[in-house]
Amino acid sequence: MKNLRAIHLPPDELPQRWYNIQPDLPAPLPPPLGDAQIQSLPNLMIGECLKQEFSNERWIDIPYEIQQLFLQAGRPRPLFRALNLEKALGTSARMYYKSEFFSPTGSHKVNTALAQCFYAVEQGFNRLTTETGAGQWGTALAYATSLVGLKCTVYWVRAVYNWKKDRRNLMELYGAEVFASPSDKTQAGLELYSKNPNHNGSLAIAISEGLEDSSRDPKAAYALGSVLNHVLMHQTIIGLETQKQFEIVDDYPDIVIACLGGGSNFGGFAIPFIGDALTKGKKTRFIAAQSQSAPNLQGKYAYDFADHAEKTPQLKMYTLGHQTDFPPIRGDGLRYHGCSPIISLLRNHGYIDTVAYPIDEKHVFESARKFMQAEGFIPAPESSYAVTCAIDEALKCKETGEEKVIAFNISGHGFLDIEGYRDVIGLK
Amino acid sequence: MKNLRAIHLPPDELPQRWYNIQPDLPAPLPPPLGDAQIQSLPNLMIGECLKQEFSNERWIDIPYEIQQLFLQAGRPRPLFRALNLEKALGTSARMYYKSEFFSPTGSHKVNTALAQCFYAVEQGFNRLTTETGAGQWGTALAYATSLVGLKCTVYWVRAVYNWKKDRRNLMELYGAEVFASPSDKTQAGLELYSKNPNHNGSLAIAISEGLEDSSRDPKAAYALGSVLNHVLMHQTIIGLETQKQFEIVDDYPDIVIACLGGGSNFGGFAIPFIGDALTKGKKTRFIAAQSQSAPNLQGKYAYDFADHAEKTPQLKMYTLGHQTDFPPIRGDGLRYHGCSPIISLLRNHGYIDTVAYPIDEKHVFESARKFMQAEGFIPAPESSYAVTCAIDEALKCKETGEEKVIAFNISGHGFLDIEGYRDVIGLK
Repeated sequence: MKNLRAIHLPPDELPQRWYNIQPDLPAPLPPPLGDAQIQSLPNLMIGECLKQEFSNERWIDIPYEIQQLFLQAGRPRPLFRALNLEKALGTSARMYYKSEFFSPTGSHKVNTALAQCFYAVEQGFNRLTTETGAGQWGTALAYATSLVGLKCTVYWVRAVYNWKKDRRNLMELYGAEVFASPSDKTQAGLELYSKNPNHNGSLAIAISEGLEDSSRDPKAAYALGSVLNHVLMHQTIIGLETQKQFEIVDDYPDIVIACLGGGSNFGGFAIPFIGDALTKGKKTRFIAAQSQSAPNLQGKYAYDFADHAEKTPQLKMYTLGHQTDFPPIRGDGLRYHGCSPIISLLRNHGYIDTVAYPIDEKHVFESARKFMQAEGFIPAPESSYAVTCAIDEALKCKETGEEKVIAFNISGHGFLDIEGYRDVIGLK
Repeated sequence: MKNLRAIHLPPDELPQRWYNIQPDLPAPLPPPLGDAQIQSLPNLMIGECLKQEFSNERWIDIPYEIQQLFLQAGRPRPLFRALNLEKALGTSARMYYKSEFFSPTGSHKVNTALAQCFYAVEQGFNRLTTETGAGQWGTALAYATSLVGLKCTVYWVRAVYNWKKDRRNLMELYGAEVFASPSDKTQAGLELYSKNPNHNGSLAIAISEGLEDSSRDPKAAYALGSVLNHVLMHQTIIGLETQKQFEIVDDYPDIVIACLGGGSNFGGFAIPFIGDALTKGKKTRFIAAQSQSAPNLQGKYAYDFADHAEKTPQLKMYTLGHQTDFPPIRGDGLRYHGCSPIISLLRNHGYIDTVAYPIDEKHVFESARKFMQAEGFIPAPESSYAVTCAIDEALKCKETGEEKVIAFNISGHGFLDIEGYRDVIGLK
């Protein structure tokens, strides 16, 4: 049977090494700043992750146990040729999408969650703390801790916690304890909570609470879901699989597209292909799909804090300012002030293009509906930005007649975000 | 890398024929009764499906186009060895689960929806009508019609329509029109609707409306999601894949478990293995997991109508009576009065065991949570009945020390049913 449509990678072809792009970058990565903050890291973070953060090894072995966890999470995930969508658009482009929506919790975040949990167990921790905004990261960590037998504490921005009941219950079903932040569980939270128990909270406050909680408990570590080098490296499993899948069909992308908030999804999908561009002379174009709410790649390339409360080291990145407020959007995972240092450096050297879609998100959700009706899968709001960009590029090919190869990552499914579709598209 | 955990079937190993068990049954299938109803079928149903319904061919080719649709839907789906769950239970059993939860709409129902839609297009129809209760079938048909370019009309029991807003919007995003039933769109509906616009409706009324709608429109056919022979046959793709996956690991199930409402999920998973029992002397035990709300396999083996309004032919089946009311449960797909004629005949000849779990569903949802915390995937409420049965059987093995091989099908995911978990388990 001729099969152009679904490119499956056999489990024994699961990549066994992560790609660390640091030695291949066009310039050295500027080091983090802030002595006090940097000195606190070993007490807060998982040792192996901290080591990977500053590693210059090009390839880092994925331990056997993490490979097994990836298999259990359904990896490798299929790469689909979007034949129906191509036909619906009438484009001359060849479109391929990666199916991170098959993740157990609904997003790509599980890839680094599983890796971090394995290393945490190895180091003797019995609990991980974290913050979450949209909730995808909190869910992924709740899931991964459950699989390896760790406890999990999630501080969740109260404004989101209050209405995303299903997602909160999902974390709790995995056994996590989930607190609305600011909470009365930490000093940082209590100061705000005691003045106003209905305080909306912010990602910055939630980070402070998670850090404080972990710093008080020698058996706990703090886990991060985006921005940092080791997180992006764990996520390269997505792009490394995709490269092998393109080899199977003897094709190669001219354009690589992913949505970008902090950078872990974009980095995970694009970095292996960027490596080809840096070391093998490939002429691929890379586009980060963003929201006009927080188009951080259009900000300043400067040192900035990762959090509101200035507890983290400063990182050199494209930033809109760590104390800026951003208008709420449904693709909440794209609403962050700064972009990962690695992606920022590549952007600064001209390797990354960016597009930002309007805050009303109509174009984004309408594009997602077009994709659904052709291909059948419902993308997460964040992933719909990548879908939109891919469709827009395919329509440009339709005009020019170019047969470009467009690869895009669908970082998660939208089953828990149908309310967003309803509100934006105007369903009853 | 040693991989015992995730058994993937390559796409070119996708089964190319469905298994029709009719010629291998231990006795001929009793024919349907009711001249008037039987004569109306060719005007209502898709011709090829009607032909398959009464076919005695053991193997029926899956057309190339349907194979492509299966690939697009993510088939073949992995079979997982539940190593973590085995460890958590301390069982000597080997447990395997099939991942129908990777379906684009969330359940196994897409398998027959895609097949029926292909045949409907081939025959020149431009629209399909149907009823839905829990909503899984309506979603699957909305999805499949969208992919092949048919229109879709769903009559949905009003009591469920009113509160399952996300699922309704999902159908609408695929382009389906969805009416609360009884509606003002049909004579059958209008009679009830005009007396009470808030009438709760029933599956029987919704069937009547769908049938009437389709009978008035020569370009429309009525599509069925369970019970009938051709539906079960389309679903054998699940069990046929699973058989190949067991060959890959050189293992074979001693116990095959699936949940059973009308029979399409149970049949689709178990029938290929039942074929082995009938023709190759395999000694496998087959268990249908049901609810005490509607334990139809414990009913009478007799001729009965498939619907409340007696519009369908009578089928010989295990039935609790076609006008019986059943207490509501979260696993609403298991709340049906009758079991498919094929499964009923096999049950009558001693090939099928059954277990029915209490209506409070506590044991069922607690078992699902145990599964989630070990394996990471959230099962649909209906699928959780199969999970429960598998865990119970594994715990029996723990007592006896037997190394039985337990295979169970997880027919769908629970992302749209977290409310059920919340209510039954008692989360806030």
